Amino acid sequence: MKTQTEELWMEVPERRAIVSIHREVERIVSESGVEDGLVLVNAMHITASVFINDYESGLHADYERWLEELVPFNPGTDPETGGYLHNRTGEDNADAHHKRQIMGREVVIAITDGQLHLGPWEHIFYYEFDGCRRKRILVKVIGE
Amino acid sequence: MKTQTEELWMEVPERRAIVSIHREVERIVSESGVEDGLVLVNAMHITASVFINDYESGLHADYERWLEELVPFNPGTDPETGGYLHNRTGEDNADAHHKRQIMGREVVIAITDGQLHLGPWEHIFYYEFDGCRRKRILVKVIGE
Amino acid sequence: MKTQTEELWMEVPERRAIVSIHREVERIVSESGVEDGLVLVNAMHITASVFINDYESGLHADYERWLEELVPFNPGTDPETGGYLHNRTGEDNADAHHKRQIMGREVVIAITDGQLHLGPWEHIFYYEFDGCRRKRILVKVIGE
Repeated sequence: MKTQTEELWMEVPERRAIVSIHREVERIVSESGVEDGLVLVNAMHITASVFINDYESGLHADYERWLEELVPFNPGTDPETGGYLHNRTGEDNADAHHKRQIMGREVVIAITDGQLHLGPWEHIFYYEFDGCRRKRILVKVIGE
Repeated sequence: MKTQTEELWMEVPERRAIVSIHREVERIVSESGVEDGLVLVNAMHITASVFINDYESGLHADYERWLEELVPFNPGTDPETGGYLHNRTGEDNADAHHKRQIMGREVVIAITDGQLHLGPWEHIFYYEFDGCRRKRILVKVIGE
Repeated sequence: MKTQTEELWMEVPERRAIVSIHREVERIVSESGVEDGLVLVNAMHITASVFINDYESGLHADYERWLEELVPFNPGTDPETGGYLHNRTGEDNADAHHKRQIMGREVVIAITDGQLHLGPWEHIFYYEFDGCRRKRILVKVIGE
C-alpha cells in the first residue's frame, strides 16, 4: 500500500469565496504514484468546506445568495450576535459553522489508472466561509 | 490490496426520481472478493446524489416536497431563469445543483466479512435531479 | 493492509442530542496499530448523523434551532403527521430523516503517524435525531 499526505495552505482575502483546488489535488495524486485507490480531501477548519460541483461563476453566486438565505450572517434578531448563541463567545462566525454543514466537510474521490476518476463536469473546490486568515486543507491518498 | 471499479449507467425517464442502487452495489462488492475494506459510491454528475436512507415511498415524496421548498425549480423572480444566474447560461438546472448539495455526492461504506456493513434500515439510493439523459455512478472498492 | 472494525452502542436519553464520540474514535485508531490510512465513522441508523464541527454548546443549541426551522418536527399542517407522508406509516420521525441529510451520515478522517489527522478545532460528534433507544455507530479503520 502507498500513501501520500499533504496539507494545502489557503489564505482567502475575502470573508467568503469559492476557490478551485482541482489542479493541486491532481498534482498530489500524480506525485503519489498511486494507480488504484482513494483520495480524501477535507477542510481542516470547521468554517470551510470542500465540495465538488460546477466551475461556473453564476452558480457560485447563486450558492452565495442561497446559503445566506438559509442561514444569514445576521438574521437581525440581535445587532451584536444576530441571535446566534455561538456569537456570544465573542465570535461572529456562527453562520459559517452552519453553511459548512450544507456544503460538506470533505470529498472522497476514486483514483483509477493513476488519475482522479471523475465525471465530465466534476470539479473540486474549497469554500471559505470565514476568511482573511490562513487555513489548511488535507489531501490524503491511499492505494497502490 | 484488491480493488474493483465499475461505472453504473442510469437513464431516469423523469426529471427527478429516487432509484435504489443497493443490489448493484452489493453485487460489485461480492464480485470484488474484498473481505475487509471500503466502498465509495458517488454520482459522476453534479446534478445528482448518492445517499443512504429509508426505502419508504412516503419519505421519498416528503424529500421531494422539502427540497423543492428549500430551493425551488423556479422561485418565480424571473419566468426564464427563476432568478438563478446559472440559468442565464442557457441551462434550467440551477436548482438541481443546489439540491444535490443537500443530499450529498457520495457515500463511503465499510465492507466486513465480504459484505456491506450496514445498519438494519440503511439502503443505498441514487437521486436524480435533472434526468431524461444518460448519467453514471461510480463504485470503487478497496481492501483485501 | 491492516483493518479494525468496531461498533459503538449509543443510547441517548433525549429525543435529540449531540454527543462527543471523539475519544472513542481516537481509542479505536490507536488500538488498530494503523500508522497511515483512513477511518470511516458513520451512523448505522438513518435518523442520526456523524459530523465534525466545534465543541461549543452555544453552537449546538444554534444547530438545534436552525434544523427545527428548516424541517420542523411538526410543520402544523396536520396534528397527527405534521403533513409528512412518512408519518402515515405510524412513525413520528420524518423530520429526523430530513435533519440527518443536512448534518450527514458519515465522516472519513485521515490517519497519519498513528493519529487522527485533524485541524485544531475539528471534533467528532454523533447527532441523535430520534433517541430514547439503542443505536449503533460504525468505526472502520484501514491502512498500514
